[in-house]
Amino acid sequence: MSSSASPTLPPEPAAPVYINALMFNTVGYLFSGMLIFLMQLGFALLEAGAVRAANATNITLKNTLNAALGMVCYWVSGFGLSYGGGNKFIGSSAFFLLDLESLGFTEAFAFCQLMFALTSSTIMSGSMAERTNLVSYCFAVIMLILFVYPVVVHWCWSDWGWLSQMGYIDHAGSSVVHATGGCAALLGALMVGPRIGRFGSSGQPMSLPGHSTVLVAQGALLLWVGFFAFNICSGNDFTQATILGHIAITTTLSGAFAALAVLLAVKAMQRRWSLLIALNAVLAGLVAICSGCATVPHWAAVIIGAFAGLQLLLTSHLMVRFKIDDPLDAIAVHLGGGIVGTIGSGLFAREEGLVFTVWCFDQHGFCRRLRSFAPSLVFIRQQGDFSQLGIQLLGILCVCSWTCAWSFLVFFALRRAGMLRVSEKAELEGLDVYTHREPSYPEFMGMRRDPDELAMRPTLFPLAEARDLNA
Amino acid sequence: MSSSASPTLPPEPAAPVYINALMFNTVGYLFSGMLIFLMQLGFALLEAGAVRAANATNITLKNTLNAALGMVCYWVSGFGLSYGGGNKFIGSSAFFLLDLESLGFTEAFAFCQLMFALTSSTIMSGSMAERTNLVSYCFAVIMLILFVYPVVVHWCWSDWGWLSQMGYIDHAGSSVVHATGGCAALLGALMVGPRIGRFGSSGQPMSLPGHSTVLVAQGALLLWVGFFAFNICSGNDFTQATILGHIAITTTLSGAFAALAVLLAVKAMQRRWSLLIALNAVLAGLVAICSGCATVPHWAAVIIGAFAGLQLLLTSHLMVRFKIDDPLDAIAVHLGGGIVGTIGSGLFAREEGLVFTVWCFDQHGFCRRLRSFAPSLVFIRQQGDFSQLGIQLLGILCVCSWTCAWSFLVFFALRRAGMLRVSEKAELEGLDVYTHREPSYPEFMGMRRDPDELAMRPTLFPLAEARDLNA
Amino acid sequence: MSSSASPTLPPEPAAPVYINALMFNTVGYLFSGMLIFLMQLGFALLEAGAVRAANATNITLKNTLNAALGMVCYWVSGFGLSYGGGNKFIGSSAFFLLDLESLGFTEAFAFCQLMFALTSSTIMSGSMAERTNLVSYCFAVIMLILFVYPVVVHWCWSDWGWLSQMGYIDHAGSSVVHATGGCAALLGALMVGPRIGRFGSSGQPMSLPGHSTVLVAQGALLLWVGFFAFNICSGNDFTQATILGHIAITTTLSGAFAALAVLLAVKAMQRRWSLLIALNAVLAGLVAICSGCATVPHWAAVIIGAFAGLQLLLTSHLMVRFKIDDPLDAIAVHLGGGIVGTIGSGLFAREEGLVFTVWCFDQHGFCRRLRSFAPSLVFIRQQGDFSQLGIQLLGILCVCSWTCAWSFLVFFALRRAGMLRVSEKAELEGLDVYTHREPSYPEFMGMRRDPDELAMRPTLFPLAEARDLNA
Repeated sequence: MSSSASPTLPPEPAAPVYINALMFNTVGYLFSGMLIFLMQLGFALLEAGAVRAANATNITLKNTLNAALGMVCYWVSGFGLSYGGGNKFIGSSAFFLLDLESLGFTEAFAFCQLMFALTSSTIMSGSMAERTNLVSYCFAVIMLILFVYPVVVHWCWSDWGWLSQMGYIDHAGSSVVHATGGCAALLGALMVGPRIGRFGSSGQPMSLPGHSTVLVAQGALLLWVGFFAFNICSGNDFTQATILGHIAITTTLSGAFAALAVLLAVKAMQRRWSLLIALNAVLAGLVAICSGCATVPHWAAVIIGAFAGLQLLLTSHLMVRFKIDDPLDAIAVHLGGGIVGTIGSGLFAREEGLVFTVWCFDQHGFCRRLRSFAPSLVFIRQQGDFSQLGIQLLGILCVCSWTCAWSFLVFFALRRAGMLRVSEKAELEGLDVYTHREPSYPEFMGMRRDPDELAMRPTLFPLAEARDLNA
Repeated sequence: MSSSASPTLPPEPAAPVYINALMFNTVGYLFSGMLIFLMQLGFALLEAGAVRAANATNITLKNTLNAALGMVCYWVSGFGLSYGGGNKFIGSSAFFLLDLESLGFTEAFAFCQLMFALTSSTIMSGSMAERTNLVSYCFAVIMLILFVYPVVVHWCWSDWGWLSQMGYIDHAGSSVVHATGGCAALLGALMVGPRIGRFGSSGQPMSLPGHSTVLVAQGALLLWVGFFAFNICSGNDFTQATILGHIAITTTLSGAFAALAVLLAVKAMQRRWSLLIALNAVLAGLVAICSGCATVPHWAAVIIGAFAGLQLLLTSHLMVRFKIDDPLDAIAVHLGGGIVGTIGSGLFAREEGLVFTVWCFDQHGFCRRLRSFAPSLVFIRQQGDFSQLGIQLLGILCVCSWTCAWSFLVFFALRRAGMLRVSEKAELEGLDVYTHREPSYPEFMGMRRDPDELAMRPTLFPLAEARDLNA
Repeated sequence: MSSSASPTLPPEPAAPVYINALMFNTVGYLFSGMLIFLMQLGFALLEAGAVRAANATNITLKNTLNAALGMVCYWVSGFGLSYGGGNKFIGSSAFFLLDLESLGFTEAFAFCQLMFALTSSTIMSGSMAERTNLVSYCFAVIMLILFVYPVVVHWCWSDWGWLSQMGYIDHAGSSVVHATGGCAALLGALMVGPRIGRFGSSGQPMSLPGHSTVLVAQGALLLWVGFFAFNICSGNDFTQATILGHIAITTTLSGAFAALAVLLAVKAMQRRWSLLIALNAVLAGLVAICSGCATVPHWAAVIIGAFAGLQLLLTSHLMVRFKIDDPLDAIAVHLGGGIVGTIGSGLFAREEGLVFTVWCFDQHGFCRRLRSFAPSLVFIRQQGDFSQLGIQLLGILCVCSWTCAWSFLVFFALRRAGMLRVSEKAELEGLDVYTHREPSYPEFMGMRRDPDELAMRPTLFPLAEARDLNA
């Protein structure tokens, strides 16, 4: 490329430019953030496929809103409450991303952390699908990302947090992201109640199959990809190559063994190979390894994954028993998997993986710690006692209690105000046409023209076809 | 891993290998290029979902061809006219990527820039969907990527360009990529005319809904991911961490506020929550922030995003008023959003963000500028006048005029030759069967066997069902 | 972000942290691994779209299992047999990823290499779709990833391998990944036999169209993205910028020219523009350039791509002639494309691209070679003889013979045991309902309730509708 015609070329610099840790981590966080943002698409597809076609537009809009609204909330106060300096319980600076040190790096870090927040709140949309009012869901997202989730992050991931300073292990968020989201999902599903037709006249569970297994698989496989970025990026300095490679392998093993364990279990119990349960098992395994991915050895990742998968079957069964209708099994995947993982890293964490930190870099590439684990932790496993397990149990208990309390308050208030659930008419007609006037597949569903209405109207998937699971 | 058996291991080197800016930027451009190439899939899904099922194979093939043909054209002359040394108006070297300096780096840069070119030309396929001849679309892609788009790039992004030297701000292509593609899309839609049934017998607009809102959402969410790579990568040295992080946040805010503003506006006007309009609003917000993403402050990104979203409603309305049929609203998203963004960065750009360059590195990691903004620009905003706004208006005017002129010529010639539009028979039967003999969903559409034909034939989506929007 | 409240900040370090090649390559391999893992999703969608809706759940589960089972097998022995030190023919250490040097880096390398292994084995699921027993497919995956594929990798890619030491060129696996997978796919399709209805009563081929061209396109475009990571990452040190950029361009050109050549050829022969054949052509072009992407010049990539595309038409025709039923044309794409590419790099490789290695780094960033090409190769092309071509032919012959022999043994044993193929009843009903009780689109297929069965049952796509291709 000839440059002879260029009038403005400066003289050549005297030395090559070498890459310092500030530049490297900035780019690392940005690329990770993009890959984790792919998980929003993954959840949208997973959830769209798992609901009936009459509500596919609705669930997709909820996922879109989750992203847009979550971005705004995290900008306003999410990052400030999470990582702003403050006391042990809550951050109190950096709101609106103002007054940041080492600006570009911290903005990149905030961008990446935002994607974790979006993941947490999107879990609710699954458990409350097909009958929750759109505006109520928005309030739930605001509650979670504006306030509840950032406080949990401050406790567990910031240098100032009381759990962080005790040596609580939750590398990529089994509790911070997934149990938090899972608790909100549980309270939401409880308060909004089951879908019409989900439980028969004598209380027996009925099957309301989603409209596309291919969409579900597509979403789950995309989430599988995203979880690698999720775990590798979380809380790491990208210069710590030893830990990064380890995370990739533990994450791989946990997801894979969860799938295989559950496939065999379902085959033994139900005499069939279930794609949908296998996919949820992969997700549960990936959720569970988030906590210990940097600290447990390979063989422990196998155990954690298999356990996380198998608890899915039990938790899912319990949900049905207690008449909690979770169309996605999101509670079993994220709350169940999160608890298994948090306890698992208490049992299996080794010392070597523990010494890791997030660094904050100044403009010359000099680094200052943003957060780190207390050094005392390094020797805990060598003492051979169960003190780490105690810390883990305390942590998951506090995280779940905090989230459940606030979720109860918000969902209870919304229910009292009559805003939580759509009308019976809307639910029976399908939300796509009733709320959005945008049927998801206008050419494929049997359409009838309603002369009184502007829109075409799909004939609803007949609820009478719901299968009695006890029959 | 034991290496004792290996016969060929060399002696260990004397010093560690450090990463210089050449290596870092090469890898950065390659990964960005891949993520931006994901946008081709995003556009394919967005457009496939927004057309009727009888034309889904057709639009997907157009997107595939856009990629394949665009790659060839950009290799032949696109990169050379863009970044080859030359005069102020056009490049004149590096055709076929021959005679490049610092070879691998420049090839990686060309790979990444190619993906911007593909994005620009694919915009046309949306506005001209469901009635344009495949061969004519190929001519339009060739026109744009072989010649028209590279010249615009040379003006605005190369070190030699006259707009670049005036201090024109278009960081990631609100005008270069999106307004250019949008102008071609506008001229194309004008010249090919509306689809049969789009306007009723008395000229009133009718609704021809696309066949899958889920596909549209999938495409839009994937584009959302791609836009982050699009903006972060464009025109940057990846060592400039401060700018990269800033871009991630402004891009985030603009897309999010566009979605929220438009959702509320549509709810107020039409008493419904529209997924499809919200998704287009996100895209318009992302298009608009391309120009100023590196130079405007956070609060300005909020304003630019909201404005870009709201203009969508107006522009889309104007298109219908003037009987321009744009099945994707691509013109409103890309041309409208592009103009808003170009003007917005004239109003809100700060000096700090402006000092950025693309570097060209020699094999020792020494760098030489590939392009940069004229230093005079740095002080413009401090003078408090509107000179920057003037430059922006001049720039967008010239870019649009140039593209419109060439697009008019090419589409006019194609129409004269009778090649621009498919036959009425093909349009009514659907292009998938007529042109490709590959119906998009053979099992789901009502099929009838035509004994005279080899292929099965879908019963067309009944045009009589089109909804009168004025009724 | 105020940090005054933090009690644990350490003193600032004395020097900036610079990035060395160990850190850089670790992160490079991890991000590449994630992008290549996206290809599992790509294959799942490609294959789901290319089968009938009654088998879409089944093929998706096979792809999911391919990933989960493959991960386990590669962990157990795949990496050890591939890259563990040993003799010229097989590795014998590093099983279960134990006893690795420079731990994190090698784990990241193994993570990335795992994704290549998954790509190889997933090819079989396409050619054997719609009639293969799930358990048999699992045995085939285990055979390939536990043993057959790693041995090929050891021959061709490890420093110890006999083909590697002869100077065999297969940069990203035209033979190692694709011909290996393609041979297994060929033997599998041969042994399992054609689908019911694929060949008419007088032996004439009948068309059994897949259920969604949009899904096929989505999968293929995603694979297109993945192939860039596949080629750029494979076997490279990410510090070698010159080679990386070159690979991006050769890969671009080969895929694009394959698509264009085949589109025109099909138009000339069949008077139609075929999306599905064009997409397979892109894949064949990308498969073929894997071998020589780093070593052939741009113009040779054009030739290799076009040839790989055109051989697709011939190979596909031969498959039908010999009554081998390959629903995806996976054999033509991967085995045919792989052979063209392996021979092509023997004809067109230049010396400059050849000097590349994979480095293994110690914790201080010092590097030691993991594998490299024998120096003798560098001068071969200058001698002007055909010795390189001979090496290439010997290599592809040995790789194919090895894989075919083991595949024959395993598939023959499975067929003898009566496990290879599903029952006629299952095939006619569709595997989704029969094996999984999870119909892929319960609302869209005509459903009838079978009172004796728990599940709803789709009315099968009528095989009588299959089109006689000779008519």
